[in-house]
Amino acid sequence: MTVTVGIVVFDGAEELDFVGPYEVFAAAAMLRPGALRVVTISERPEAIRSAKGLRVLADHAFADAPALDVVLVPGGQGTRREVDNAVLTGWLREVASRCRWVTSVCTGSLVLHGAGLVAGRRITTHWSFVAPLRERASEATVLDDVRYVRDGNLVTAAGVSAGIDMALWLVGQLFDPPTARLVQRYIQYDPAPPYAAETP
Amino acid sequence: MTVTVGIVVFDGAEELDFVGPYEVFAAAAMLRPGALRVVTISERPEAIRSAKGLRVLADHAFADAPALDVVLVPGGQGTRREVDNAVLTGWLREVASRCRWVTSVCTGSLVLHGAGLVAGRRITTHWSFVAPLRERASEATVLDDVRYVRDGNLVTAAGVSAGIDMALWLVGQLFDPPTARLVQRYIQYDPAPPYAAETP
Repeated sequence: MTVTVGIVVFDGAEELDFVGPYEVFAAAAMLRPGALRVVTISERPEAIRSAKGLRVLADHAFADAPALDVVLVPGGQGTRREVDNAVLTGWLREVASRCRWVTSVCTGSLVLHGAGLVAGRRITTHWSFVAPLRERASEATVLDDVRYVRDGNLVTAAGVSAGIDMALWLVGQLFDPPTARLVQRYIQYDPAPPYAAETP
Repeated sequence: MTVTVGIVVFDGAEELDFVGPYEVFAAAAMLRPGALRVVTISERPEAIRSAKGLRVLADHAFADAPALDVVLVPGGQGTRREVDNAVLTGWLREVASRCRWVTSVCTGSLVLHGAGLVAGRRITTHWSFVAPLRERASEATVLDDVRYVRDGNLVTAAGVSAGIDMALWLVGQLFDPPTARLVQRYIQYDPAPPYAAETP
C-alpha cells in the first residue's frame, strides 16, 4: 500500500511552506520505493503564482486528485483569501475526513480553521499570527513557541521553515525514525543559521 | 540600485536547492523594498520538471534574462546533463564574469566546474559527491564537512538544505546581519531536526 501525501497549493501560498515538506516527502519516496508518493493539488489546473512570485503547475486539480492519506495546507498571503473560499474549505473538509493525517504549515492553520477542522484541538501557526488566530479560533488552543504540535491526527507547524521539521517527524511516524534520519542525511539537514539571534 | 539575484532552474534541479534560497532572497526583497529582487531563469521558456517532479515556470529564459548581480546554480540529478550543456555553461560563464557573487547549492558546483569557474578555488558540494568532484575538478580544492565555503566571489554550499544557510549568509553580506536576522525571523528559522543523528 502506497501512502499518498497531497500538498495543496494556491495563489499566494508561501514557497518554502510547501516545497520544504515536498522535498522531505519526495526524498522519503525515493528512499522507500513504492511506499510513498507526494503530489501537489490546486483547485484548478492552471499554474498558481506563489506568495513571492514562483509559478508552479500542480500535479492535479481538485477534480482529478487521488485519494489521500496525508493532506498538507501551506500558509502564505493567499490564505487570507482561501479561508473564505468555500470550494477549497469544502474540498478540504471532505478529504480530511478520510485522511490519516491532516497537517498545515504557517498560516495554513487558518485555512484548517476555515474548514472547521480545529475544534477542541491544540494548534499553532506563524509567530506573527498567534494572536489573530487565538481571536479567530476560540474553539481551539493556539500554542506559541512550538515548532509543530500534534493533537490526534492533526499536526500544525509554526512558520515557513518549520514545515521541514514537521514533515521529517511525519516521515518518522509513517515509517520509522531511521527512515527519517536517512531523509535528513539525503537533504544534508544539519542546519546552521549563520547569524545568531540578537540578544534581547 | 536594486540587487538582482538570478536562480537558474532546469529539468532535474532539486526542489529545495533552489526554493530554499529563493524564499530567503524573496523575504529580503519584501523586508527591504526596492533593494533586491530575485528571479528564476531557465534556458527555454517552457516549464521545467524538477528532480522530484515539481513543475515550475521560470520568470525568464536565457534570451530575456535581466543583468544579474548574483547568480545561483542549484544541484539535482539534472546537473549530470547540464555539465555537458554548452548553452547553459556558456551562458553561465558569460553571466558570472559580470556578477558580484557566483554561487551554487549541492551538485550545482559540478555545473560551475563545467563552466570553468572553479579553478584554484575552494569549493564544496553534497556529501555524496565530494569524492567524484575531487576526481573531476582537480584544479579546485573540494572541502567536506562545511555548510558552505566562500572563496573570493564564489560561494558554494553543501547538499540541498545548506542553500538556506548560504543564502542567509549572503543576505548578511549584501545588506547587513540585522537584515539577515529579520529574514531568519520571518521564515521562523529556528530549525529543530526531530530525530537526532544515530551515534556511529
